[in-house]
Amino acid sequence: MKNAIVLVSGGLDSATALAMAVAGGYGCLTLSFDYGQRHAREIAAAAELAKHFKVREHITQTIDLRAFGGSALTDSALAVPKDSVGTDGGSAIPITYVPARNTVFLSFALAFAETRGAFDIFIGVNAVDYSGYPDCRPEFIEAFGRLANLATRAGVERAGGEGYRIHAPLIQMSKAQIIRKGLELGVPFEKTHSCYDPVTGPDGRSLSCGHCDSCLIRLGGFREVGVKDPVGYVGQGTSSR
Amino acid sequence: MKNAIVLVSGGLDSATALAMAVAGGYGCLTLSFDYGQRHAREIAAAAELAKHFKVREHITQTIDLRAFGGSALTDSALAVPKDSVGTDGGSAIPITYVPARNTVFLSFALAFAETRGAFDIFIGVNAVDYSGYPDCRPEFIEAFGRLANLATRAGVERAGGEGYRIHAPLIQMSKAQIIRKGLELGVPFEKTHSCYDPVTGPDGRSLSCGHCDSCLIRLGGFREVGVKDPVGYVGQGTSSR
Repeated sequence: MKNAIVLVSGGLDSATALAMAVAGGYGCLTLSFDYGQRHAREIAAAAELAKHFKVREHITQTIDLRAFGGSALTDSALAVPKDSVGTDGGSAIPITYVPARNTVFLSFALAFAETRGAFDIFIGVNAVDYSGYPDCRPEFIEAFGRLANLATRAGVERAGGEGYRIHAPLIQMSKAQIIRKGLELGVPFEKTHSCYDPVTGPDGRSLSCGHCDSCLIRLGGFREVGVKDPVGYVGQGTSSR
Repeated sequence: MKNAIVLVSGGLDSATALAMAVAGGYGCLTLSFDYGQRHAREIAAAAELAKHFKVREHITQTIDLRAFGGSALTDSALAVPKDSVGTDGGSAIPITYVPARNTVFLSFALAFAETRGAFDIFIGVNAVDYSGYPDCRPEFIEAFGRLANLATRAGVERAGGEGYRIHAPLIQMSKAQIIRKGLELGVPFEKTHSCYDPVTGPDGRSLSCGHCDSCLIRLGGFREVGVKDPVGYVGQGTSSR
């Protein structure tokens, strides 16, 4: 059974990408990041998903992307936009874009892969719902694959032979298609977390805001599929679970 | 004055690359890593060099490459080779190669650059003395440049226009050539640190071992130039400074 590294954020996209890697017969090792994002809920969700799928190894890397700032997700001076996909004024790039985040994440995945003899890396990026994110585009994924095969031991020893493959199986899927695929593969969506701006409910449980870009896209996907989103939302009462 | 990001390890190569960026008229921002390497001396050296060159901003990122292991520099179970350039058995790649390290470092540099409006990134890699390191080769640097221009805001907004440039000004220089260039530009070599396996001397000052790959290459360079290396070595007495 070949090892694969799977980047798991705790969201439903990467949970589905993990389920697809498992279904594809890979022995999965998962990697998450505490990168200075506003909330820690998604890091716990990633660990729960890794446990659910009985991965071979789960590592959480702590890095400080707040030191650079430049995104509503890592800079407390910038507000998370609500009820519209927020951009940074004239640009097509959402203000929730975190500079070079996927490049950083894939670089660590490559280090993890190289030391574990894995040549397959899965990332749950999506070019449909996040069309403004430069590092969710197919050409970025292809360029990282080329880099990976020059950056490493394999680049020297396997020149021209089989090397690293970056799998982005969701890249051209709609959110509804991802949810359908996840349901088919038994992804425990109740364990996933997507909200950029969650609050802690009266019972201590995390509640999604229902109004940030990520919640809007997620809720739209579940609506299209005709299935109730199992996570709790603010103002929704406790019957949602 | 254009901003540039300069990766500074505390060694003499990156110190010289920093001096070259300064001499080239860039406003420099420096980035160092505490990545789980065996010794902290080089992190302090990087900060001293940043101060010496009066950079605009200096960030030290703490990351844990020990979680992956796979190198004599990040895995305490692997010994640092002495008196020969150590490889991992049959391979041309030294055991001091840290998997995907330069990919990780350049990724953070890219995040730093993107948030500071810098489009020039300097890295002191060298393909001559470290010929076995996959991520010190010109084709790796070129591939990272292509990736950078797809990964970021500039990749979307400046398509076809001016984008990121990865500068590796030392890549084809010998150690003696680097030392000569550094002397010409006033690099304070006494503040640099190269040894993979330093010890603390009786007076609390860090002493280089003189026998690891990095010391051997450094000492050979100073010998070729005909200048005494100003750092202290084990067994050399205190007159060396």
